[in-house]
Amino acid sequence: MRKAANHDTMRNANLLTVFHTIRCGGPITKKELQRETGLSWGSISNITGFLLEKGIITEQQSEGAVVGRTPMGLDINLEHNLIVGLDINLQGMTGVVIDLKGRQKLVEAEPLRGVFRPAIMEQATAMIHRLLDQLADPAEVKGIGISFPGHVDSKKGVSIKIHHFQGFEGFNLRRFFQDEFGLEVIVEHDTNCLAVAEHDLGVVQGVDNFVILRLCKGIGMGTFSHGRLFHGRSGATGEVGHMIINTDGPRCQCGHHGCLESYASVHNILRQCGEAIQLGLAPVLEKLLEGDQPLTLEAAAEAARQQESSILHIFQQAAAYTGVAIANVVAILDPDVVVLSGELAAYGDLFLPKLMQVAQDSCWRTAPIEFRVAHNHCYSAAVGAASLFIQKAFLNAIDDY
Amino acid sequence: MRKAANHDTMRNANLLTVFHTIRCGGPITKKELQRETGLSWGSISNITGFLLEKGIITEQQSEGAVVGRTPMGLDINLEHNLIVGLDINLQGMTGVVIDLKGRQKLVEAEPLRGVFRPAIMEQATAMIHRLLDQLADPAEVKGIGISFPGHVDSKKGVSIKIHHFQGFEGFNLRRFFQDEFGLEVIVEHDTNCLAVAEHDLGVVQGVDNFVILRLCKGIGMGTFSHGRLFHGRSGATGEVGHMIINTDGPRCQCGHHGCLESYASVHNILRQCGEAIQLGLAPVLEKLLEGDQPLTLEAAAEAARQQESSILHIFQQAAAYTGVAIANVVAILDPDVVVLSGELAAYGDLFLPKLMQVAQDSCWRTAPIEFRVAHNHCYSAAVGAASLFIQKAFLNAIDDY
Repeated sequence: MRKAANHDTMRNANLLTVFHTIRCGGPITKKELQRETGLSWGSISNITGFLLEKGIITEQQSEGAVVGRTPMGLDINLEHNLIVGLDINLQGMTGVVIDLKGRQKLVEAEPLRGVFRPAIMEQATAMIHRLLDQLADPAEVKGIGISFPGHVDSKKGVSIKIHHFQGFEGFNLRRFFQDEFGLEVIVEHDTNCLAVAEHDLGVVQGVDNFVILRLCKGIGMGTFSHGRLFHGRSGATGEVGHMIINTDGPRCQCGHHGCLESYASVHNILRQCGEAIQLGLAPVLEKLLEGDQPLTLEAAAEAARQQESSILHIFQQAAAYTGVAIANVVAILDPDVVVLSGELAAYGDLFLPKLMQVAQDSCWRTAPIEFRVAHNHCYSAAVGAASLFIQKAFLNAIDDY
Repeated sequence: MRKAANHDTMRNANLLTVFHTIRCGGPITKKELQRETGLSWGSISNITGFLLEKGIITEQQSEGAVVGRTPMGLDINLEHNLIVGLDINLQGMTGVVIDLKGRQKLVEAEPLRGVFRPAIMEQATAMIHRLLDQLADPAEVKGIGISFPGHVDSKKGVSIKIHHFQGFEGFNLRRFFQDEFGLEVIVEHDTNCLAVAEHDLGVVQGVDNFVILRLCKGIGMGTFSHGRLFHGRSGATGEVGHMIINTDGPRCQCGHHGCLESYASVHNILRQCGEAIQLGLAPVLEKLLEGDQPLTLEAAAEAARQQESSILHIFQQAAAYTGVAIANVVAILDPDVVVLSGELAAYGDLFLPKLMQVAQDSCWRTAPIEFRVAHNHCYSAAVGAASLFIQKAFLNAIDDY
């Protein structure tokens, strides 16, 4: 039998309800707030008083005010209260500053300068300092949201496991940034941040049940259920890249056999392309790489588009296995929409038709799978991390709360 | 950006909050209710007035009342308001009657009389009538919760796909029972009902994130997240039996290759045991079946316990593949606990150690997987279905609401 919520939980829930009702519906009068939330006049007065005192909301003449009456509209204080979002990923590093309605004030992006922890943390710290330096008043920044790949314990803010970076296992990212900037910090799995960004501002606004796959050097997934991020025990969800889809398959970097990533990560696609060149099976790609060009996904895609059959096959095989993994995800989670994002989603012509067909053909669910391609801006995960900070930690970060 | 909840949604949410707060915390005074929920005195008065008028709650002297003061405690009205739960499954049919606190008043169970729709629906109708006939006042029954296997659209109450029964595809179970009994009805996937039963009264009370696998003729899964049933688009979640874990594997009954069920369902375990007998590889089992005994899981388990290596191998292989599937589920959902239920869970000595070891060894997550074996009463799914009715439909089933 479920236990009734206790008083503190309920008080916090009411504060969050009022905050989000103003954030989404402002400007709004106290009377309207009471009607929307069903809370008592006393609770509404206490909570709005607290939010006004903390400068989180402002009081203003409501737009629809009739002369002679003066209903005071409450709205989010967009002048103050900024949040930093930072996405540290295999593709690069992106930092943003957003206001409480999620609008971007600043964006910075650059390639990653290394895979070792000291280099990455130095670059991250420098990027956040650069963002803060551009603000008229850096004290307006109330917190930092960090998007990080691999297995993250988001409750503790600790990186648990990440294959592509060095020196992060067990490292407390949250404490590092808290100490460096003296601000409240949340750390979240990158695909969860992407899910939030696409739900807030992207292709799944208003969709309450969806999954989003990030098809990159690694393959991760974020899940929304009942309009909320699906979070599991410690936030270590969505490791679809290490879903075993062929127990007889090749050995994956993680040590198991037949994981999705062993077929379909950008890393393994490029590895297979390199092998095709070695075997003399990819003359077109070999020619494209003359003059010491690095073997990139772009070059491989160009060869595939020129009908190099070996390379075309590698793309199609990766798409097919990703399709099987998506069919498995749909059988378990029954999402309304499957969102595709990341580097590979950008090569739609080579990848997506096969992926969608195999997913549908392999799926136990009879209803068709609805696919959408994410907005996939370079800053999406960073904005999502900052937005999650607003949802999860912002009110706690305010003094006296 | 999320839309603010509208007035009706908020009103219903407040009614549900009050109902559940009384259900879990009663007897409770109106003042305590107000403090617990933060709702206005007006809302509390309106809602409790409505619930009293409908006979859903009663007013009584609070236990802790001091002489001279008379705080009236509100509590659930357990005398009236009964719910029927019915579990139709491959293993048999079970019916229960419970009160609003989930306590069982009546239980009936019997083997299934056939796999064709007419026979099953006749048996189901007869069982519910028999339950109603045993009640002093059948009018106290306010609704019916149905637990059904396979792919169920629980929003519509329709069976979408079920391989082991005949004639159900597209059949509206909800409308059938509504018409037969003139009561509100919900239909839910059997594993979801089991999840609710184990969360309310079983081995995962107080655990907010867990999965429960039902290892039977088919293999299904229910998921709790944030303390609620994970529901997806239409409730067609948890089809872990049709998760593809070996793309090069044998053809499954569903038409795809290498689904979990093709290795590990009771159906396929027995099929493989039959093949072993045909090939002369299972003399012990053959002897056990002398005199036209049917080939049952019990007989196969007995042969395995007598160290018949071919049969032991079949059990261990099924356990290993189930372990891989669980590793995949943990990588995606990061549950606190994995609950095992169903016929196979009862053969723990032959099945569970191998399953747990392979699941842990194949799992990307480093944290150990916590397993629990479900209470697994024959009536669990039926009680879960009735309990879900209380949570989801009971208040709507009351007039004027």
